[in-house]
Amino acid sequence: MYGARIARAAELARSAGLDGLVVTPGPDLRYLTGSRADSFERLTALVIAADTAKASVVLPRLELASLKESAVGDLGLTVLDWVDGVDPYAIVAAQLPTGAKVAVTDAMPALHLIPLADTLGALPILATGVLRELRMVKDDAEIEALRRAGAAIDRVHARMAEFLIVGRTEAEVGEAISEAILEEGHTEAAFVIVGSGPHGADPHHEVSDRVIESGDIVVIDIGGPVEPGYNSDSTRTYSMGQPSAEVSAQFAVLEAAQQAAVDSVRPGVSAESVDVAAREVLAAQGLAEVFVHRTGHGIGLSVHEEPYIVEGNTIELVEGMAFSIEPGIYFRGSWGARIEDIVVVTADGCESFNNRPHGLTVLG
Amino acid sequence: MYGARIARAAELARSAGLDGLVVTPGPDLRYLTGSRADSFERLTALVIAADTAKASVVLPRLELASLKESAVGDLGLTVLDWVDGVDPYAIVAAQLPTGAKVAVTDAMPALHLIPLADTLGALPILATGVLRELRMVKDDAEIEALRRAGAAIDRVHARMAEFLIVGRTEAEVGEAISEAILEEGHTEAAFVIVGSGPHGADPHHEVSDRVIESGDIVVIDIGGPVEPGYNSDSTRTYSMGQPSAEVSAQFAVLEAAQQAAVDSVRPGVSAESVDVAAREVLAAQGLAEVFVHRTGHGIGLSVHEEPYIVEGNTIELVEGMAFSIEPGIYFRGSWGARIEDIVVVTADGCESFNNRPHGLTVLG
Repeated sequence: MYGARIARAAELARSAGLDGLVVTPGPDLRYLTGSRADSFERLTALVIAADTAKASVVLPRLELASLKESAVGDLGLTVLDWVDGVDPYAIVAAQLPTGAKVAVTDAMPALHLIPLADTLGALPILATGVLRELRMVKDDAEIEALRRAGAAIDRVHARMAEFLIVGRTEAEVGEAISEAILEEGHTEAAFVIVGSGPHGADPHHEVSDRVIESGDIVVIDIGGPVEPGYNSDSTRTYSMGQPSAEVSAQFAVLEAAQQAAVDSVRPGVSAESVDVAAREVLAAQGLAEVFVHRTGHGIGLSVHEEPYIVEGNTIELVEGMAFSIEPGIYFRGSWGARIEDIVVVTADGCESFNNRPHGLTVLG
Repeated sequence: MYGARIARAAELARSAGLDGLVVTPGPDLRYLTGSRADSFERLTALVIAADTAKASVVLPRLELASLKESAVGDLGLTVLDWVDGVDPYAIVAAQLPTGAKVAVTDAMPALHLIPLADTLGALPILATGVLRELRMVKDDAEIEALRRAGAAIDRVHARMAEFLIVGRTEAEVGEAISEAILEEGHTEAAFVIVGSGPHGADPHHEVSDRVIESGDIVVIDIGGPVEPGYNSDSTRTYSMGQPSAEVSAQFAVLEAAQQAAVDSVRPGVSAESVDVAAREVLAAQGLAEVFVHRTGHGIGLSVHEEPYIVEGNTIELVEGMAFSIEPGIYFRGSWGARIEDIVVVTADGCESFNNRPHGLTVLG
């Protein structure tokens, strides 16, 4: 599988007029080789020559034993190890033609990119454009992993009455949710947002010492990876006691907006058209101004990746693309709400990996 | 404190002939502003103009509320928020003179560095050279934090007999150590190496399913951050039962080498001279070839940072620099050993933050 992905990456690089790809640790390296290497200050890089599809791993000699023990050691890559004092960027450059036009993974830190650019004599471009065609469209094994991730986070939302209780702080609720994320099969609780009352109006709030009160509307946005590294990400909004008529009415518009966006997904439509579908429903009810972010993001080995469901992204959706659909409404100083599902594009629409009820769940 | 650090960074940038610094989330941003922001695909950056020392924060509007709630909101920085669809790199460039010569933090991902370089029309240089003068030399509060971190990891090593037991796997031992790292006051168990028997010969081994056996020599290299983010990192080597005469003799050389390096530290000597001090003792006993890595690395908000204690690093040590001294000996397929302390340069030598006995501790 990894061999085929590397070959396809070389082919895409060739079509893009590139001489090679240089990929340091991160989701792209994991996708191409299965490597879970962390980024260190010492350069580790996969170098793919576009014309021959020859792939080499440049890495510190210290990491050689770990490489040989990992599955990466079975891929038959040329291994070029280096020791402190040697210039690893020269080793990378030597695997590519002189004056090579190179693309690099978007995770490569400046620490490595700047000396690499100096050695190559030119600024590389981002490999995202080359690799996204590969990474955006999920194969069956990836879809199955995302489906398992979605079911796992649904089980956490199903247990929310255990965690989200009046009198607890957001941080206490968040801690209980983090444990449940692990219990339900994730390898990590990558993010937990408990946005209660006015904090729900901040889409990127995490947790705080605010105590959950009766009457609060609470945004719970949670997720993390399941083996072999694919992520869940799902938001539901809860009401601590019966919501007011005004909140219910505004939430109903949000629910309709989210559904309209889901219903608009099928092969051949643009990513931005899904954003427009949600936005139009909100705008029709005067809520355009309180939806302050894009409708969604692709998901896979990264929580956020291509395709982004945002105005200006004219990319055409194709079967196998997976992304979030997560419109929200935010009333500064008062309350907020968001509904988020991960969907995958199918032959004639989409399948949702999250299947908990969309409505305001009343707790407490 | 942060205001003074930003002013000093501007001054150093000016002396280096730069027009500005651009710092995305990571240890440099934390050092300069206290911000613990994570890196997202949306650009967040501190922009410091060298001539005026004017500092601005460019960030997504989504993050505005979090910024205002954090201490960063009190620094009086100019805040420039942007929404999806706007080009944040143009906002960065607008804070700097046309054709600005800029340095960036080494943590900046290619995702941001490449469009920033395109916008500026030139490849930035690494800010490491500019900021290292600031970050390398720790102030009293930083030294106190590192001292607390050292004492915390010493308490974990002192409890090693609880965790490191014949019949357990390295992974089980590692899990128990991780819990102890948190119990003893760290906010995270950042790394845990349990290198038993032949695994001890791989300096970067982490843990595995290998079962600890009687007679094993075991390398335990552990650490993590304590508030407000400063790291511990200490290695001791344990023997499951009495070691052989040969192992004891070779370990004694390692102990002498580590001590020689510690004794060589004082203001005015070069970083590489400390590496040489350890290496010479090992070489005199024919062990030069089995010491396969540098002697140490600086430590602070990052586990690995300047100054690196390595051949070729001619930087002069000054009071307040903190770094590891960690020579090791590695016998492929058989066993390995390492002794690691964090030290800070004082007026006439150094103070060690790790004070557990250096010898092979016999357990089991």
